[in-house]
Amino acid sequence: MPAGEPSAVPSDGLTTRQRRLRPALIVNTGDGKGKTTAAMGLALRGWHQGWSIGVFQFIKSGKWASGERLALEALGAEHERSGAGGEVAWFTSGAGRSWVRKPDDRSEQAEAARQSWAEVSARLAAERHQLYVLDEFTYPLVWGWLDVAEVVATLRDRPGTQHVVITGRNAPAELCEIATTVTEMGKRKHPFDAGQKGQAGIEW
Amino acid sequence: MPAGEPSAVPSDGLTTRQRRLRPALIVNTGDGKGKTTAAMGLALRGWHQGWSIGVFQFIKSGKWASGERLALEALGAEHERSGAGGEVAWFTSGAGRSWVRKPDDRSEQAEAARQSWAEVSARLAAERHQLYVLDEFTYPLVWGWLDVAEVVATLRDRPGTQHVVITGRNAPAELCEIATTVTEMGKRKHPFDAGQKGQAGIEW
Repeated sequence: MPAGEPSAVPSDGLTTRQRRLRPALIVNTGDGKGKTTAAMGLALRGWHQGWSIGVFQFIKSGKWASGERLALEALGAEHERSGAGGEVAWFTSGAGRSWVRKPDDRSEQAEAARQSWAEVSARLAAERHQLYVLDEFTYPLVWGWLDVAEVVATLRDRPGTQHVVITGRNAPAELCEIATTVTEMGKRKHPFDAGQKGQAGIEW
Repeated sequence: MPAGEPSAVPSDGLTTRQRRLRPALIVNTGDGKGKTTAAMGLALRGWHQGWSIGVFQFIKSGKWASGERLALEALGAEHERSGAGGEVAWFTSGAGRSWVRKPDDRSEQAEAARQSWAEVSARLAAERHQLYVLDEFTYPLVWGWLDVAEVVATLRDRPGTQHVVITGRNAPAELCEIATTVTEMGKRKHPFDAGQKGQAGIEW
């Protein structure tokens, strides 16, 4: 991470303070590891800032998410008890990863994804949270379950200074276009390629 | 993240269970964002597993680290109080980012990095933690402050099932060689390029 010094001063008419508080739209894409964990690390930083954090998991469920979910929920409980940090609200849709390989379940899953997105849209309109983690959100876009143009317009025109982090492979170009940060997590070496199975604490 | 199914079964003579518990050495490198946040996200997962977590920051200090540090320390305190999750031990060396531009301070910083590495080595030998986050550890390697061959041998030969995550740009090839996972966080779009300054909750 660079030392925070911009390499250029833009001619956008904004003050440094306005620019500093500009809402971030961060996309973590690519076929490497770290997309979701980096988003959860940002949630840690946001929690410390006292932000209200909304996490929306569009695919994962069950054990795949339990590590970061229960840890962040412990931080949310700490906020309830002592006032430290911010609140944490967690939403899941979908029945886990295995359904991706079961076409029969897809229409149900598509409907669940649409309901989750409707919830995100409503909360954005209400400025309900300061940080939204839309985990594995690229898949319902790529699979045509959500209208990319509508999603992009809603995110682009969101009111206030709400930050959004989106994870998943194959982020659509239209989404990257409106993002403030796009990181490609590229796989240089992956344990599954060598026959390693997922393990607790590392993959979930 | 794939669904946890290996694409090949290796002929290494290990059982699935042995392979599942094989110690991970994860390297998050590249010039994009997400290297440190992904490591901190892994620490969240490890905390939930009840692991003892040691975080060693080789460069950052001050506000740059405070978000994830204080959030993880809150989880460590939760462990002390209720027994949930695991313990969190945090170590910093170095005086912050600005010193990188001040060559006069470098010998002092190099010495601090060597002391931190000695601490990591001793803890690895004692199997003190289950997850080590060596944040921005590539820099003392790249700058010649630490002997890469000695570091690689110590990590490669560490006893037990201790997991290690290393972050920083330009990870040396010898380090990637012994890693189980290497992710290149590539910059496709970065707000600092557009004149954006770092902001609380996002960069720290």
